[in-house]
Amino acid sequence: MLRFIVMLGLFCLTLSAAKAAETKPSAEETAVRKVLNDQVAAWNKGDLDGFMAGYWNSEELTFYSGKDKQLGWAKTLERYQKRYQSDGKEMGQLAFAELEVQTLSPEYAIVKGRFKVELKKETLEGLFTLVMKKMDRGWVIVHDHTSS
Amino acid sequence: MLRFIVMLGLFCLTLSAAKAAETKPSAEETAVRKVLNDQVAAWNKGDLDGFMAGYWNSEELTFYSGKDKQLGWAKTLERYQKRYQSDGKEMGQLAFAELEVQTLSPEYAIVKGRFKVELKKETLEGLFTLVMKKMDRGWVIVHDHTSS
Repeated sequence: MLRFIVMLGLFCLTLSAAKAAETKPSAEETAVRKVLNDQVAAWNKGDLDGFMAGYWNSEELTFYSGKDKQLGWAKTLERYQKRYQSDGKEMGQLAFAELEVQTLSPEYAIVKGRFKVELKKETLEGLFTLVMKKMDRGWVIVHDHTSS
Repeated sequence: MLRFIVMLGLFCLTLSAAKAAETKPSAEETAVRKVLNDQVAAWNKGDLDGFMAGYWNSEELTFYSGKDKQLGWAKTLERYQKRYQSDGKEMGQLAFAELEVQTLSPEYAIVKGRFKVELKKETLEGLFTLVMKKMDRGWVIVHDHTSS
């Protein structure tokens, strides 16, 4: 009987360890998700600079949207300014959903997800794929492909 | 004078070696590009099965287009069949341009590029980002994000 209880105990421990390994995100995944959460929080305060901090501040940043390429951080910022901060525009409320984070190596991760921007008169919605790289200062988006 | 000529020779050798290292694609990049070249060749013969051989034949393949997700190889094939092989449709002539291949690790690579499909009455055009993985049988596309 004792042996049975011990074995049952071991079995339950193994199960819960397996469950924890399966569901607990890695430290890297948590760090990647934090970049996106910080972006959303910044956007929803109307802080475009804060939002842009999630992107690699480099000429080599690439941003694909529809059939247009923006090359570099400055062009990417300019696109956001035109679309969400120019006359008659608003930033609205941003939300990400269906996020999937996959670390490919110690240095690279992919994030797939859906975005929604609720504006006064319409809701913009679409999908994105991000390539993220771990730099000295942490994870940043080095490539963004978005479509709606 | 002899010493000068020898040094000049060494200098030129160094220059050309540096140039070769800079421009010669790695074996992995060559293998990745071959998958895409084979896809284009298959498409332009009307061979959709051959084209689909570039994709991971798995339920876990993901295909994002506009704001639609296709999950799995079978759904991805179905999308191509509907768009290019159903009544009144044609596959046309496919070409890729502005290809950038970046190997992120021994197992993963990213490909960015532009596609064009010339049909009788119109030309479809857009951008894609591919995540490619090296499997036992070689490199395959595990995620495709396309937009136009």
